[in-house]
Amino acid sequence: MATDVLEVLRAKRDGRALTDEQIRFVLDGFTAGTVADEQMAALCMAIVFQGMSPHELSTWTRVMLESGTRLDLGDVGRPTVDKHSTGGVGDKVSLVLVPLVAACGAAVPQLAGRGLGHTGGTLDKLEAIPGWSPHLDLADLREALATVGGVICGAGDDLAPADRRLYALRDVTATVEAIPLIASSIMSKKIASGTSALVLDVKVGAGAFLPEVDRGRELAETMVGLGRDHGVRTVALLTDMDAPLGRACGNALEVTESLEVLQGGGPDDLRTVTLALAEEMLALVGLDADPAEVLASGRALDTFDAMVRRQGGDPDAPLPTSSEVVEVPAPATGTLRRLDARAVGEAAWRLGAGRARKEHPVSASAGVVCRAKPGDAVTEGDAVLELHLDDPDRLEGALAALETAIEVGDAPPTPRPLVLDRIA
Amino acid sequence: MATDVLEVLRAKRDGRALTDEQIRFVLDGFTAGTVADEQMAALCMAIVFQGMSPHELSTWTRVMLESGTRLDLGDVGRPTVDKHSTGGVGDKVSLVLVPLVAACGAAVPQLAGRGLGHTGGTLDKLEAIPGWSPHLDLADLREALATVGGVICGAGDDLAPADRRLYALRDVTATVEAIPLIASSIMSKKIASGTSALVLDVKVGAGAFLPEVDRGRELAETMVGLGRDHGVRTVALLTDMDAPLGRACGNALEVTESLEVLQGGGPDDLRTVTLALAEEMLALVGLDADPAEVLASGRALDTFDAMVRRQGGDPDAPLPTSSEVVEVPAPATGTLRRLDARAVGEAAWRLGAGRARKEHPVSASAGVVCRAKPGDAVTEGDAVLELHLDDPDRLEGALAALETAIEVGDAPPTPRPLVLDRIA
Repeated sequence: MATDVLEVLRAKRDGRALTDEQIRFVLDGFTAGTVADEQMAALCMAIVFQGMSPHELSTWTRVMLESGTRLDLGDVGRPTVDKHSTGGVGDKVSLVLVPLVAACGAAVPQLAGRGLGHTGGTLDKLEAIPGWSPHLDLADLREALATVGGVICGAGDDLAPADRRLYALRDVTATVEAIPLIASSIMSKKIASGTSALVLDVKVGAGAFLPEVDRGRELAETMVGLGRDHGVRTVALLTDMDAPLGRACGNALEVTESLEVLQGGGPDDLRTVTLALAEEMLALVGLDADPAEVLASGRALDTFDAMVRRQGGDPDAPLPTSSEVVEVPAPATGTLRRLDARAVGEAAWRLGAGRARKEHPVSASAGVVCRAKPGDAVTEGDAVLELHLDDPDRLEGALAALETAIEVGDAPPTPRPLVLDRIA
Repeated sequence: MATDVLEVLRAKRDGRALTDEQIRFVLDGFTAGTVADEQMAALCMAIVFQGMSPHELSTWTRVMLESGTRLDLGDVGRPTVDKHSTGGVGDKVSLVLVPLVAACGAAVPQLAGRGLGHTGGTLDKLEAIPGWSPHLDLADLREALATVGGVICGAGDDLAPADRRLYALRDVTATVEAIPLIASSIMSKKIASGTSALVLDVKVGAGAFLPEVDRGRELAETMVGLGRDHGVRTVALLTDMDAPLGRACGNALEVTESLEVLQGGGPDDLRTVTLALAEEMLALVGLDADPAEVLASGRALDTFDAMVRRQGGDPDAPLPTSSEVVEVPAPATGTLRRLDARAVGEAAWRLGAGRARKEHPVSASAGVVCRAKPGDAVTEGDAVLELHLDDPDRLEGALAALETAIEVGDAPPTPRPLVLDRIA
């Protein structure tokens, strides 16, 4: 047994491809506890350096998938399609997109996770709505997909459980950033969730998990390939995350902004990215509805309300607000050239909107509102950001995170399209 | 705390040098248990790929050293000098060299380890002598160095204890082979043992731990640099380990062959390598004795007998012999072109001379004797090897290990010098 683990480790360390049997042996052994954490950690670090071939990665993902249940949602009476974002700052797209695509006739089974670090989590955002619960059993999930069409709920423990264990290990061993490991982690869970089609929103730029466009493209191509290998039609958009998406960062603040978009208003960038993703999702399942029209009709808002009620929430209840709002002024008069998404995300996190460890609670009301966005004219002393907080002790850390986040100059910033590339 | 470990891991992963503080933090944390095994394993694998700078490595070794005791042997009345071999097949050099250099006037404090895998351990060999014990306390060690001059005994648990823990981790995570980690592991223990000078026998060739000459030279240069950094005059010889050294591989068999050399005979290659190392050791401590003359005089043999008696052994007692000897014949008539050291070492190991796990016992009598060496004329059907064993079940594995070990042809093998390079 020990010899075999060492053979696997040596093969990957020395740049040789792992066989299907070796991958199954090491992942099953890790789940069963016969491959030790330190051995898996060494393997993950070797993968950081040596990567995995498409065939290795496909097998790796299959074994992850087979460690748990793969849902079959073929009987919900609508075509299933989901979206996954690699995580951004102010990225509340799912809150608009899921009811919108559902209102267009699809079933969207979004089994979501929690936020960690500077990017927020969809479940945390929805939990700002009084009464809403992320828990839904499988029978309720099917019923909700058949009737309401859209579901955002917590992923069960039985979807790719090997990935959960592996992710926890990668998190403490600086091996999260390996593209094959990211791709198989995301795709094993999404494939297990039973969707027939998937649109990936791969963020690039300052606030993205992988800031460089080339790395984002590589991740997108890897995930699209894995979707194809496992029978899930998959398309990826590379979208910009240099500045926060929309103006609101923080749980209740983002719900409010999502409602603005569902009511036909809201920030242009958020609306643009949401519609681009909706069009891809509808095209993948062959529905020819016009999402902009459905948004304007109010039907997406009705679906959102129905989704919230289905999980115990009251869409009419007032959302929590913070006790204190502190303004961060423009350092000069001119054009806002840069508003660093990562810094804004970290400030929101430090104000209480996010968590440092997965067992920590989050504040529903804390966060950051961007009064100005890159390209806007600003006047020295006028607010660029609003910091929303309840705990005054958290202000200092947030301000420290924002120290170099705002750049004002004479020339406007070089424009960059919101959707940078499409990978299919 | 967790953040700091991750910073260290990310720095090494991304190719940045670790600071002294980071190295101390991570090694002390590993010893104290606050840095988890999986984190250290990931760091070791990152070091396999990114290496360590001379400064990093010097600090790493210092922290290892400081995890335990550094002996001071400045008061034994003789200049101290030791030898370390990276391990080879049939490498019984210490059994001749330690008494020889002691007989020339030096004190040789060889605190040795156990054999593991296909290379034998010096303590295992001496334990074939009835009554001999590897245990010696510090007062006895000093006394033996002052009187007999040579000591081969087990290293105490207090020499670089952090290395012991780290080695156990590397052993199960395929991170043993990283040159900086090998170098600091060897040198931290040797420096801790209190010797003022050190000669390294770095083996290269089929039976060596690092077969390639370039890798061996890199290891030698790294260790010589660490010796200099820590005040131990160090010289390395790169010596050939393509074929076994001498003819005997196995514990009692090697003691017998060592006695032949101490009595003025024995195989040429063993004698040549031993004298080359002895000359380096004597030069390092400024003793101008001629080791060939001392060997011929019988004084080295007297010292060996005294060393054995000092630790309870009876040098006149008959050594254990095996109940069965099986011959491995030449497959053809011609010249023995190749006798693969690694295969012979593995055969001896499978016959019982070595251990797969450190808690296993070894057989004193089992092993392999090479009747022919590369360059010798052989006749089809005549014995090239003798396999000595007590347990008939072990024969099949040994024969399997030898399947491609013997190559007979027309032309003699290309001669290669025994001492390939000297690094000072």
